Amino acid sequence: MDNHDIKFLLSDAIPLDSEVTVRGWVRSRRDSKAGFSFVAVYDGSCFDAIQTVIPNHLENYSSEVLKITTGCSVEVTGLLSASVGQGQAREVQVTAITVIGWVDDPDTYPIAKKRHTFEYLRQVAHLRPRTNAFGAISRIRTTLSSAIHRYFHEQNYHWVNTPIITASDCEGAGELFRVSTLDLSNLPRSKSGAVDFETDFFGREAFLTVSGQLNAEAYALALSKVYTFGPTFRAENSNTSRHLAEFWMVEPEVAFADLNDNARLAEDFLKYIFKAVMDERQDDMEFFAQRIDKQAIERLDAVISSDFEMMEYSDAIDILIKSGEAFVYPVKWGLDLQSEHEQYLAEKHVGRPVILVNYPASIKAFYMRLNDDEKSVAAMDVLVPGIGEIIGGSQREERLEVLDKRIQSLGIEGDLSWYRDLRRYGTVPHAGFGMGFERVVNYVTGMENIRDAIPFPRTPKHALF
Amino acid sequence: MDNHDIKFLLSDAIPLDSEVTVRGWVRSRRDSKAGFSFVAVYDGSCFDAIQTVIPNHLENYSSEVLKITTGCSVEVTGLLSASVGQGQAREVQVTAITVIGWVDDPDTYPIAKKRHTFEYLRQVAHLRPRTNAFGAISRIRTTLSSAIHRYFHEQNYHWVNTPIITASDCEGAGELFRVSTLDLSNLPRSKSGAVDFETDFFGREAFLTVSGQLNAEAYALALSKVYTFGPTFRAENSNTSRHLAEFWMVEPEVAFADLNDNARLAEDFLKYIFKAVMDERQDDMEFFAQRIDKQAIERLDAVISSDFEMMEYSDAIDILIKSGEAFVYPVKWGLDLQSEHEQYLAEKHVGRPVILVNYPASIKAFYMRLNDDEKSVAAMDVLVPGIGEIIGGSQREERLEVLDKRIQSLGIEGDLSWYRDLRRYGTVPHAGFGMGFERVVNYVTGMENIRDAIPFPRTPKHALF
Repeated sequence: MDNHDIKFLLSDAIPLDSEVTVRGWVRSRRDSKAGFSFVAVYDGSCFDAIQTVIPNHLENYSSEVLKITTGCSVEVTGLLSASVGQGQAREVQVTAITVIGWVDDPDTYPIAKKRHTFEYLRQVAHLRPRTNAFGAISRIRTTLSSAIHRYFHEQNYHWVNTPIITASDCEGAGELFRVSTLDLSNLPRSKSGAVDFETDFFGREAFLTVSGQLNAEAYALALSKVYTFGPTFRAENSNTSRHLAEFWMVEPEVAFADLNDNARLAEDFLKYIFKAVMDERQDDMEFFAQRIDKQAIERLDAVISSDFEMMEYSDAIDILIKSGEAFVYPVKWGLDLQSEHEQYLAEKHVGRPVILVNYPASIKAFYMRLNDDEKSVAAMDVLVPGIGEIIGGSQREERLEVLDKRIQSLGIEGDLSWYRDLRRYGTVPHAGFGMGFERVVNYVTGMENIRDAIPFPRTPKHALF
Repeated sequence: MDNHDIKFLLSDAIPLDSEVTVRGWVRSRRDSKAGFSFVAVYDGSCFDAIQTVIPNHLENYSSEVLKITTGCSVEVTGLLSASVGQGQAREVQVTAITVIGWVDDPDTYPIAKKRHTFEYLRQVAHLRPRTNAFGAISRIRTTLSSAIHRYFHEQNYHWVNTPIITASDCEGAGELFRVSTLDLSNLPRSKSGAVDFETDFFGREAFLTVSGQLNAEAYALALSKVYTFGPTFRAENSNTSRHLAEFWMVEPEVAFADLNDNARLAEDFLKYIFKAVMDERQDDMEFFAQRIDKQAIERLDAVISSDFEMMEYSDAIDILIKSGEAFVYPVKWGLDLQSEHEQYLAEKHVGRPVILVNYPASIKAFYMRLNDDEKSVAAMDVLVPGIGEIIGGSQREERLEVLDKRIQSLGIEGDLSWYRDLRRYGTVPHAGFGMGFERVVNYVTGMENIRDAIPFPRTPKHALF
């Protein structure tokens, strides 16, 4: 509650020779023959721990200090001093130390000081934020999310929290989690034997949302510029390093905007949030570059300083066909691009981020705006070197008669009368996109498995903690 | 995408006599005999619409302008001018106007220009953000949420998105939504006939979270200062103006903090976010004070400028007993306080916000820290004049042996081994609180029904849109 975050103690914010109190957890202890112990204390406020130098004449030196192990919580008081050893410029010359919480059986402490595999750490997700890597990931998440809210607030966007529980399925994807309070041991049934959802909590079948977009459109067509930032869900039974059942998504939606405006927004937005990371979290980015992915810093700098290239889907298909590359998946107009294709385009062909536009209508969602060629829609995917697609969006179909044709051909009229109203009353061109937050966290940090980009991952057979 | 938000046009940001373009929706049209039409255009960037003055010599005056109705979308170009009429200082002298989207059958437009009841507007929740009241509520939500993130980011808190889907029930409340992908028409059963959740998506029963606190504690005990801001759920079958099945909650959690620190944080935090509303949304607050609740502005100002009073639960009971008030619910040490009691304390007895502390253990959750008297816990509720409780929190039980006794007496050991680990390894005193976001929105705006504080309310039998 005071200003003694280690972040400040290691900066110039507090003058040398001040008496300071540090509260945190022990990273390591080393005892010197010269009559001192060196205890590194970490409090999460920045990447680094602060070194505290504890003289052996302290009353509790033998009884406590010499028993301190990694993970103990301590309160340390002393003088903030210039460090004589190498490493940090500052350390604390300790006049008093209290051990607040011991580590029960240090030999079996699940995250004792040694390297653990990320796979192992997922099993102790309640303790992994105490490690260097997951502390750094947490700070990157905070910085990114703050930057996202700040970007939109500065530009007069309104944050709309679209519903988590929904009776409709925006994408027509079909892989939904059911939300229910029905007693499974005694399900109510109609005369035909079907489950009777009229007695369920919402009086009908209800699911977890896969996207807030359709609801966000209702607000964009009232307030011009809105965004969502909330959890979304996929009940996809995929056990891969790229799938989460629960993840966070950012979805801006802008009235009076077309596909070009949308592309400019995506570029400006990505650069802004990446710049915030480089400005605020240099310490953590250095860690990722050293330990996780050598390219981590260069990759962000490259996105920040490059002009994104706009490219037609049709041109991309030509380029891929002529590339001579041996792709695993086929390339042909009308087929969706796979990650290998996206990475070829962004990394090898263009060498910087690419915004692919105007995809075949047949592979895209019903709400995307039909182009004049009547076979493509005003969709866009932002592809970045390293992972491929990082943002997907489109201009929305604002013309009621065109939308109706699409809805009818897909047979999904039922739930969409309210969505049609948005086109019946004061319709305007509008556009937006979605960005999976954890995917961006992985891109920034270089972490490979998306389960490491979110505090408590939910995947098939896993809802621990 | 340009700088022509009406917010800027009405401020001094853009010089008079600039040519400007306005895009938005028509609030009203009035035709003068002098050969002009006055069309008020709104874009959601601020409370006010801007008046546009359209001369009858425009080419599309008869064919379009005279047919414009409330809700039409328009693009207007003209000269930003000092207004000669009363009302706003600025208006647009129009040189060109395009109607982008008409209103299909203006006579049946669900939110045509007249007063509607809030109850009616809930049935058209996809269109209600176009009204004055719900536009204002949306902007207040944005301002509050931005202020919340900014407050915590400035103070070096980390945002932790705790899981939405969970296999445990933090509060022991029991009113949970089940999350499942089981086929209800063909439920898998064990030999005993019970539903077999092993084949469900997560391999066990799973629910929607009621609080992120326990998970947030894991992060506070690694990174010191964290907060959550996400959706939470209650499957309570209550059809009242105070209950939502889905609502957003803010939950800070701070290591090395006790109940006093927690109380100071709550006071400082509330004042900060209310001040942000007064600074940024004067226009909307004036609307609420004029149309919804005369006290709206005074009430916030009073909270911002007052010192919150700390009061023991025991003292509060004495005060209530001696008050001579005829309460509906009984008052006695050991019973929880009802809204009428809370409002008496904050409004009548103290006349400003009260932080009640040290409640009977028997009425509070297992994780709250037992006081030395062994019958009360270090809980706190922040009560504000007008609605009573706005924040509830506590210092957490950091002593493993005391926590274990409590867990055992409640018979809830099963899922909590990971939570116990947080006390086994470097435990520290820590504290936090929860604040229901929609309750705060109601407090700020003076809106009475919580279904009007969230874009798409979820309540029993209602999951529309």
